[in-house]
Formats: sequence, C-alpha cells, structure tokens
Amino acid sequence: MARVAGLELELRPDLETEIEAVSRGVAMRMRREYTDLAGGVRKQATVPAGAISLGLAGTAPGLVVEIGETPVVVLPGPPPELQRLWPNALATTPVRRVLDGGTPPLRRTLRLFGAGESMVAQAFAEAGGDGDGVETTICARDFEVVVEILADPTAGKHAQKLAAALGSRLERYLYSDDGRTIEQVVLELCRERGLTLGTAESCTGGLVVARLTAVPGFSGTTLGGIVAYSNELKERELGVPAELIVEHGAVSAEVAEAMAHGARARLGVDVAVAVTGVAGPSGGTEEKPVGLVYFHAVAPWAEHGSSFSFPGDRDSIRRRSVVGALHLVRRLLIRTSP
Amino acid sequence: MARVAGLELELRPDLETEIEAVSRGVAMRMRREYTDLAGGVRKQATVPAGAISLGLAGTAPGLVVEIGETPVVVLPGPPPELQRLWPNALATTPVRRVLDGGTPPLRRTLRLFGAGESMVAQAFAEAGGDGDGVETTICARDFEVVVEILADPTAGKHAQKLAAALGSRLERYLYSDDGRTIEQVVLELCRERGLTLGTAESCTGGLVVARLTAVPGFSGTTLGGIVAYSNELKERELGVPAELIVEHGAVSAEVAEAMAHGARARLGVDVAVAVTGVAGPSGGTEEKPVGLVYFHAVAPWAEHGSSFSFPGDRDSIRRRSVVGALHLVRRLLIRTSP
Repeated sequence: MARVAGLELELRPDLETEIEAVSRGVAMRMRREYTDLAGGVRKQATVPAGAISLGLAGTAPGLVVEIGETPVVVLPGPPPELQRLWPNALATTPVRRVLDGGTPPLRRTLRLFGAGESMVAQAFAEAGGDGDGVETTICARDFEVVVEILADPTAGKHAQKLAAALGSRLERYLYSDDGRTIEQVVLELCRERGLTLGTAESCTGGLVVARLTAVPGFSGTTLGGIVAYSNELKERELGVPAELIVEHGAVSAEVAEAMAHGARARLGVDVAVAVTGVAGPSGGTEEKPVGLVYFHAVAPWAEHGSSFSFPGDRDSIRRRSVVGALHLVRRLLIRTSP
Repeated sequence: MARVAGLELELRPDLETEIEAVSRGVAMRMRREYTDLAGGVRKQATVPAGAISLGLAGTAPGLVVEIGETPVVVLPGPPPELQRLWPNALATTPVRRVLDGGTPPLRRTLRLFGAGESMVAQAFAEAGGDGDGVETTICARDFEVVVEILADPTAGKHAQKLAAALGSRLERYLYSDDGRTIEQVVLELCRERGLTLGTAESCTGGLVVARLTAVPGFSGTTLGGIVAYSNELKERELGVPAELIVEHGAVSAEVAEAMAHGARARLGVDVAVAVTGVAGPSGGTEEKPVGLVYFHAVAPWAEHGSSFSFPGDRDSIRRRSVVGALHLVRRLLIRTSP
C-alpha cells in the first residue's frame, strides 16, 4: 500500500497502544508473555505515513490512505471485521468528500416467483430495455427472479416507466416491487390481518421458521415451529396418524396436510405451513425421487396443497423448498382472505 | 471471447436446436409466439468457431474455447447454472489435459473453537510457518478458526509436521483435524454412542436443527426440534413453568435449562440442547443487552449450561449462537460420556 501510494511506512504509537491493549488480553488467555507478541503488534501498528486510523477489529486496524484525490480504504479480510470498520470509513473526511460529490443512483427492485429468467429478460426487452442512464440486472435464484433497476438521478422517470412496464407484463409473477423479500411479505400480510403463523417441517429441518424469524420485529407473528424429522415425531408432536404414513409414506400430500393441521392445532396458530420431501442425496425411489417435496398451508378460511420436483443437490432442494413454502402461504393469504 | 481468442463467430445449428427446444417451452408458458424468441436463441447459439459445447443450463450454453494450449471455460453467471455445467467442463479433452498434467496439492484442514485468530497466527509462526511448497490460510468466522494447509506433493512431510505442531500447540481448541464441521462431529459422536438428538430454540429460530439436518445420512440421530419463539409456546410445547419466565425472564439460564429438559422429554431424545437469547436489534435491556445468549445441553449422564455475549448484528448473533450450541453439545458428549 505504502509503495503504491509512494508513502513512507511509520510506526504509529497511538495505534500500537491500542493494539497492545487487545494483545495483552490475548497473551493472558494464551498464558504467554506479552513480549512474544510485541513484534506482531509493532508490525500491525506500522502503516503508511498520514493514514487515517479507523480503529480495530480484534487486533487488525482499518485505514484510509489518500493517493492524490483518491481515498483508498484498507480493511481486514474477514467479512465481519470488514463490516464492523466500514461505517468508520464512511465517516472519514476523504470518503465523505467523495460521497458528497455525487448523487446516489435511484434503485427499484422487483421480485418475481415462478417466472423463468429468460421470460423476464424477454419482458425486459419488450419494455424497452435500459436506455440512457439506466442499468438493470436480472438475477434468478431458487425459482425467484430479482430485477434491480439502477438509474442516474436524471433518468429517474425512465426507470419508473421501465419498472411499471415490467411489472404489468409480469404481474402474475410479481410479489414485491419495493425490495421486500418473500418472508417480509408473508409476515406483513399476517400482521395486517392479525394472524399468527407456525411451521411443521421435515426435509427443510427448521429452515422455514429460521427464515421467518430472521426478520426482526415479528415475534408476535411467527410463534414457532415443530421440526419433525422422524416419523415418530410426526405422529407424536404433530398428530399425524401412523396409518397415514404407512399408507402414503412420510413424503406425501396426505402427510403434508396432516402436518399442517397438526401444527396449527399444537402451536395454537392461525396459519400453518408444512413441508415434507426427499432432500437426498439418498432416500429417493422411482415413485418418489430426490427433489420431490410436498407443501400444505392452512388458514382458518381455506387451505392449499402443492408439490414440486426440485432439481439440484440437498442444499438447493432444501433452500428451494423454503421458498416454495413461503410462496404457498402468500398465495393462501392473498387469494382467499377471511 | 471470440475477439480475444482471434476466432470467428459461428451460428451452431446443433446448439440452436437444443436452445430452441427449451425456448419453445418458455414461449408456451408465456403464451407467446416462438418467433418472438428466435432472435435471442440464434444469438445464444452463436459462439466462437470450434468451441466445445458443455450443454445447457436453462437456455444458457456453456463452452470450452481453446486459445493456443490454454482451455478457457465459459459458463453462465448464476452459481447453480455454473455448477451444473462445471462437471461437463472437467470432462472435456482440453480441460482433462490440463488436469492430468499436474498433481493435485495435498490438503489438511484444522478446525478450532474458542481460539482467536491472532492466537492461531502466533502458534503457526512458532510451529515454523509455511516453508517451501506449503501455503497456509487462517480464517476466523463465528468464533471458529479454520486452518487450511495446502502443500505441493513434494512438501507433504513438512505439511504433516506443521499440522501436528499446530494441533499440539492448540490442542484445547482443536475439534477437527480432518475438515469435518462441528455439526458433523456432533452427529458422529451421537451415532457412535447410539444417542438421539433434539433441539429447543428461541432466538436461533430453527437454525440449530436446520444445520444438523443439513448433513445427510443422520435421520436416525437428529429426530427433530421445537422452535418456541413465543413465551406461550415455551410453556405449552416445552413445559417451561410460567413462573420461571416471570421470575427470570425468557432469556435466562433457568429458562434455557427448562427448555432443554422440556425438549428432551417432549421429543423423547437422549440429548437436547436449548438456546434463548436477545438477537436484536431491539429487545435489549441494560441487564440483558442485545447479543446475550444462554445455552443448555442435557444428556442422560450430565448437563452443561453456558452463556455468551456475542457482538454483531442479528444475523451474526444467531449464527454465532448456533456454533455455541453445537460446541456445548460436543463438550457434553466428550467430557463425560456414560
């Protein structure tokens, strides 16, 4: 860094003191003499002359170094450390100067479910495409497609028109035009209607409820879930009749339905969704291959079942199943409300 | 690509036929004429002369193009599509030729819990460091440190010695020296001892059981879990006495303990682990700040409780709580077995 910037290296006593304090704690935990670590500390406190310190993440300092007019932000590698120091970088004068000199682009995010990437690309082309000052990315993942429209401040009108044209062409697939994820949409629909939500999961093993509870502020909406990975627990915790499992198999529309009803009763929630499937890599049969997943969602006024054959490995199948489950709940909530 | 390789572009009829078949399906779903899509299909089927086709991911082809002796692999951007076509790329003659011409490096992975990154870096330096033909990366994440030692085939002995020296210096933190993750270690310890496992989760909302069930082949070990996000469910599904919650709060060592015992009884498992904490961003108090998490693990022969104050945002706190819960189970399984 110093070489590129054409600056001398200097040992900064203030930084050394700071890193030393953290390292003394480390030495104590290691039952070692601090002097053994002192060399490493001095090395970490030796920085390009004039660098602005961003403070420490652990023992690693962050820096802003100016090369001419250009501020260069130097951060530790691990993402959590990098993220911890980033706000400090934004607050420095050189970085502020850059940020204040420009206008942030406008951003519109459309999220779609059930539309293929090429279908969205086609609709995008028909809607007129990017044009001057607008840059759109279309990204498919787990049966969702995310369209990000970035526009220069001068191209805001065109971006709005593009978003509207895309939205109307793909209306039946569009579930969010403000960047909200499917779990946020589901949680807000429930809250608006005063409904509580719970889950019954087999192959997803807790990922559906984990994704719902990842959104802060909805502890009164998602009350909980039951992960019944074994058949025994499907019977005991979700009240699925043993005969149903024997007759149709644990991976079946019938068992998904019974799991959803069981969760609704046991968790005392208004709306419950159940997932059971073959996530693989083993356990598939000719009749029920790896990737086959059954869903069932129940509300007081209606219920929906569905099934998918997902391609991909165990992780993909589980991730896609989570998306499938959440969209089934959304469909139930918007199609037939009480 | 064609320009860089100095090759002409050519429309490949075989590729066009393949992409057309997929696109006709898309057109049908969109209720559109195929002719509207034909232009895009021709574009996707137009490739550098002599390119080897890797087949399609959706409508996107993958290619291998040779520039002199060097094969260049061209893949679609989305990770699942890229991953789907990668094995085909490995099977082509030009890529095979490169792979067969070299010897893969040796790899040793050490995983540690509770040791800081700088502590590991120090132990690494004392153990002699990389030396010729050995390259080590040390990466910290969620209170675990992963050490990857990559060695040229000629430096295998040195890599083994380095791994052994590191392992003995950091013995009390080392939980895996063969790359197995903490969930794999826990699941295998349970299976070896014929024990079943279950979870009771509040702030982690299903992430612990989701991580356990992500490992295939252990459906007889992890039977399931109860996510009791609300106090009501802690009482009803896990049998936590209401007075306990009133007296100590839902985030307390006492409630964690009761949740673990409740899960063990309700799920009928041998070993249960419970997590309750403040994941934030709101809900923290002076006495119980955001990041404070209580754990409790119960086996037939012993039990352990612990608590951590995790730094970071909601996601980090939840992720770190999962790691903390799994390591508590490991400690219970190895320290005092029946």
